[in-house]
Parts: sequence; structure tokens; C-alpha cells
Amino acid sequence: MLSKSQISLVKSLHQKKYRKEEHLFIVEGLKSILEFLNSSYVLHTIYATSGIFPKLANLSHKQKVFEVTDNDLIKISILKQPQGALAIFEIPKNESFNPENMDEMTFVLDGIQDPGNLGTIIRTADWFGFKHIICSENTVEAYNPKVVQATMGSLSRVKIHYQSLVDLLKSSSAPKFGTLLEGNNLFETTWPKAGFLILGSEGNGISEELLPIITHPITIPGTGNTESLNVAISAAICMAQIQINILK
Amino acid sequence: MLSKSQISLVKSLHQKKYRKEEHLFIVEGLKSILEFLNSSYVLHTIYATSGIFPKLANLSHKQKVFEVTDNDLIKISILKQPQGALAIFEIPKNESFNPENMDEMTFVLDGIQDPGNLGTIIRTADWFGFKHIICSENTVEAYNPKVVQATMGSLSRVKIHYQSLVDLLKSSSAPKFGTLLEGNNLFETTWPKAGFLILGSEGNGISEELLPIITHPITIPGTGNTESLNVAISAAICMAQIQINILK
Repeated sequence: MLSKSQISLVKSLHQKKYRKEEHLFIVEGLKSILEFLNSSYVLHTIYATSGIFPKLANLSHKQKVFEVTDNDLIKISILKQPQGALAIFEIPKNESFNPENMDEMTFVLDGIQDPGNLGTIIRTADWFGFKHIICSENTVEAYNPKVVQATMGSLSRVKIHYQSLVDLLKSSSAPKFGTLLEGNNLFETTWPKAGFLILGSEGNGISEELLPIITHPITIPGTGNTESLNVAISAAICMAQIQINILK
Repeated sequence: MLSKSQISLVKSLHQKKYRKEEHLFIVEGLKSILEFLNSSYVLHTIYATSGIFPKLANLSHKQKVFEVTDNDLIKISILKQPQGALAIFEIPKNESFNPENMDEMTFVLDGIQDPGNLGTIIRTADWFGFKHIICSENTVEAYNPKVVQATMGSLSRVKIHYQSLVDLLKSSSAPKFGTLLEGNNLFETTWPKAGFLILGSEGNGISEELLPIITHPITIPGTGNTESLNVAISAAICMAQIQINILK
């Protein structure tokens, strides 16, 4: 049985304000929880229903795992159909990305607003082995439950940095690629070992202040029927192209 | 001022049951509505607020355009933030895809459930110029308002066919590619001029009955950190690869 204060804490974490205050966030579903447990993230609490409880309670942190009823889980879950387990982990301190040690093409997100898009970009980055994603301060928060859900556990492996993009990009001499409506053909691009690739927001693209910093404008060639691609789709197509380049 | 019966008709179209009965579906937003008007879709009615009304009422179908208040639009819109105009178009009769005239790689979706995924696949197909998408009968309905919204107007250009995939694929001698966890490297694939590429559902992949029909299993190579890619991401990466091949 969950106490009122437990319910109140978890429910507060549905909101950004309280995630920021408590430095805690929610992960749901056995598979994702196991991936976070297997990472450097610090566990706070797990609530699991009887079917899933034994799979989580036999681990070293068993004093942090509580069995709850289906009804209790419905009360605290963000999902319409809760997945049998909800965990709370600590939000790590935001670390600025250090461009001096950059050893790969690194994606930079300028103002992405849709949680599903950010989550999908993190999941795709993990698939292709990109270790870092840099976000502008006005990009949707990576610990938003919808982002966490869309990453399918990949947030436990890809490091997310929030910081001023102008300051970062101006401080580095690495090549700066940016996806624009008019640029060089993505499919004919030769990629450096390390550099930045900037993707703009859903509505507004790359912000004015970053445009002069781009050294390599690129475009995904299309028929011109439709105005734009979804940003998570653009990111994935770029990631695949960089991956092909690495494999060559 | 909207009548009760007008409100009741539009609201009924939020539900699949009534879309099927009435053969009508909803498109919201000026840009998407203009794209549908510029296609073979048949207009039923447009409701627009005063700011957008003049942009739609001066067209040849002006007797079908009604000015409404913001409050009226909120009552009938599926969006949290209505975009100033809502149109109703006729759902065209479903036509089975005819493989005899196939002149391009054609995507086949086996049980996609998420409206955002189907909408994004249609939008990406339009970007790269794919003209048809074939869906299994248990794939989410293309006229679901969330699908229509995610296509950003592209549904007006890409033809969607619902039919038995087993019957279709067995009737054609064209190559049948399928994305599987173990297959040939997508990035080393040589594409034929025409053929099918099958993508499975979010939870279950390609269904058992289709597996023996696949002649060319393919895989998007990754690090193996994460179990799978989002299906709209997989589709986009495949579409980009086919597009590169065509451009060569």
C-alpha cells in the first residue's frame, strides 16, 4: 500500500517544476528500469506489482523496491496502461560538453520542443553509438517522462548536455554542420572524424544567431513536394550517413 | 455560428466508427487544407475563423466554406490549440495495390499501431517521392486525425492501400525485402528498380506468416546497445538508402 506522501512525491515528478526541485525523474517498465539500474544513474525507489516485483527485488538495492497493487500503480503512472513497474532515479548534475575531447560527430539540438522527437533522437543515437547529445537551454527537458519513455532505455547510455550553443560552438574550431533547406547534398558529404551537426527546432529551424557559425550547410535531398522532414527523421538519416562513413 | 448537427457531425468524425460510416475525415490547419484542396481529394466542408476565412473562401468551392468563431472551432477541433481552420474531406474508396504496374521500391507496413509513426512514414515517403504505401488491414487507419496531422499534408500526395499482405506478396514475383534483426547490411544492399520493403509493427515486428515470403532480409547495422529502432526511423533510413541508390 502506497502512503499519501509516496503518491504525492511520484505524482509531483510528472511536472518539470518538481523534477527540478527534487532532482528526480520517473522511468517506467521493467526493461527500461533494468537498463537504468545497469548504468551510472542512482536509484531512488522502485514500485512494482506482484508479477514484476521478484525480478527487481532480488537485486542489491532490494531495500528500495516496494510491492504495490495495480491500482496504486495506476495512481502514480504517467501511462494510460502502466507497465507493472515505476522507478525513480536521480537526475545527474548537468555537465557542459567539453569540445576539447571530442572524438566523434556530435549532434546539437537547437530548441527541439516535442518530447517524442527528443526521445526518438536519443534512441537512434544509442543505436548508432553516438555517446553525447548537446541541447540548447530551450530544448525540451530530457527527464520529461514522455522523453524518457520514447528513449526506450537509451537515455541511460547517451549523455545529454544542456548549455548555450553559441558559447560552445564559438569556442571550438571543429567543423560545424547544420541541416538547412539549402545546403550541400547530405548524401555527398564527407564527414570529418569529429565535428558538430546542428538540427533546428520543429517550427523554426536553426536559430538566427547560430546561422553564421555553421561552416558546412547540408540538405537532405527530396522531391520538394513537402516543406520539411520531421526533425527526428532528419537526425536519423544524418546519423545513418555518418555511420556509413565510419564503416567505410 | 455552428448548428448542433454540424458540431455533432464533426465530433463524430473523431471516432473511427463514424469515419467509416460517413466516409469523411478531418484535416486541420491552412497549409494542410490547401494541399488537400490541390489534390484529388473531394472537399465536404471547411470551417475557418475570421483571420483565415478569406484565404479559403475566395476559392472555387466557396459555398462549402463557413466562418466560425474561435469558440466554435475549439468545440470541433481534435487539437488542444486549433489552427484556425478545420476541413472535412471524403475518404476515397480503398484500392488494392496492383503489383503489375509497380515501378519503384514500395513500402509495406505490417501492423503499425502508432498514428504518429504512420503519419511520419507517409510524410517521409512524400519527401523522397515514394508514391504508394501498402498497409496490412490491422495497421492504424490513415484517416485517423493523429495520422493526418503527422503527415503535414503529405497524405494528399501519397496513395495508401489497405489489403491482405500475404495475398499481395504471394501474387508478385518482385523481390521482397524485410527489415529483421538478422539480415544483410542495409548499407551494402543493392536495390532493384522495383520491389517491396516490409516493415513490422512496433511491438512484434514482421508477422510469422510473412517471414517465409521475404526474399531479402535486411538489417540496419548498429552497436547492439538498444534492441530496436522506432519503425518510422527504420523506414526513413531505408527510404534514404533507396533514394541514394536511385541518384547514383
